[in-house]
Amino acid sequence: MKITYSPIGTIHTPFHELSGMPIQPASDLSAPGTVELLPEYLPGIKDLDGFSHIILIYHLHQSHGFKLMVTPFLDTESHGVFSTRAPLRPNPIGISVVKLLGVEHNLLRVDNLDVLDGTPLLDIKPYVPEFDSPPAVRLGWLEGVKYNLRSTRSDQRFS
Amino acid sequence: MKITYSPIGTIHTPFHELSGMPIQPASDLSAPGTVELLPEYLPGIKDLDGFSHIILIYHLHQSHGFKLMVTPFLDTESHGVFSTRAPLRPNPIGISVVKLLGVEHNLLRVDNLDVLDGTPLLDIKPYVPEFDSPPAVRLGWLEGVKYNLRSTRSDQRFS
Repeated sequence: MKITYSPIGTIHTPFHELSGMPIQPASDLSAPGTVELLPEYLPGIKDLDGFSHIILIYHLHQSHGFKLMVTPFLDTESHGVFSTRAPLRPNPIGISVVKLLGVEHNLLRVDNLDVLDGTPLLDIKPYVPEFDSPPAVRLGWLEGVKYNLRSTRSDQRFS
Repeated sequence: MKITYSPIGTIHTPFHELSGMPIQPASDLSAPGTVELLPEYLPGIKDLDGFSHIILIYHLHQSHGFKLMVTPFLDTESHGVFSTRAPLRPNPIGISVVKLLGVEHNLLRVDNLDVLDGTPLLDIKPYVPEFDSPPAVRLGWLEGVKYNLRSTRSDQRFS
């Protein structure tokens, strides 16, 4: 079974190389940028400006092939790829919750971007804590490692 | 540009019709079920069992066509589809944060499912509040409506 999607827009960011990037939206290194929606979808963002945060779903277009075991940026041990947020996934889909700063026609100004410039956008959803943020969690391997999400940069390992 | 994915597994739930379903994982009507990973991807879920919650990304396989303006289950007013979680999206991708109850070989027992039985699975990610739950939010049109997420059922409107 093949599932085919077409981008609904493009994410513009200051990041042009896989190495040296922020590894999550919550990083101090994440940056403001622009989500450019294809004009034909403009009616679809009516009322989006009321939300402070949105979920971007996008295609990791520079992720070629996949690995089932990876050593993520935040650890020195390897883990199953589905237990990590590493980009070399069987279906290279990324999600980021970002701050929506403003909407001007088909351009969304957002903050906290952690993706490459030119990333193809697949979907936008409003971020709703009641839907998306269950209260109690265990964090698996992440609980056992000392990491600094805010300052860790990506390197070449998934290039 | 076309982007092609292949399912990595199937989500098994008690829900066989689009009408009468829970509309989000946090609904009282959401249900336990099973995520069946294709055996070839089994190494990819190593260490996933340490996480209490996981993000399922899936193809809304019964969502045919899209509408740019929709009236969501929780409101009587219409909004741009990207300002809602309605299924009739240009790329019918769904995401659900669900509780991981246990892992047995290639079967994940999960709770809080809100998807149709047989839904094709595209990706699994660990749910990490530091990555996925920004603290402060405005909720747009949802702030202005009185809704009961926990007891609202889907109806035929997106069939």
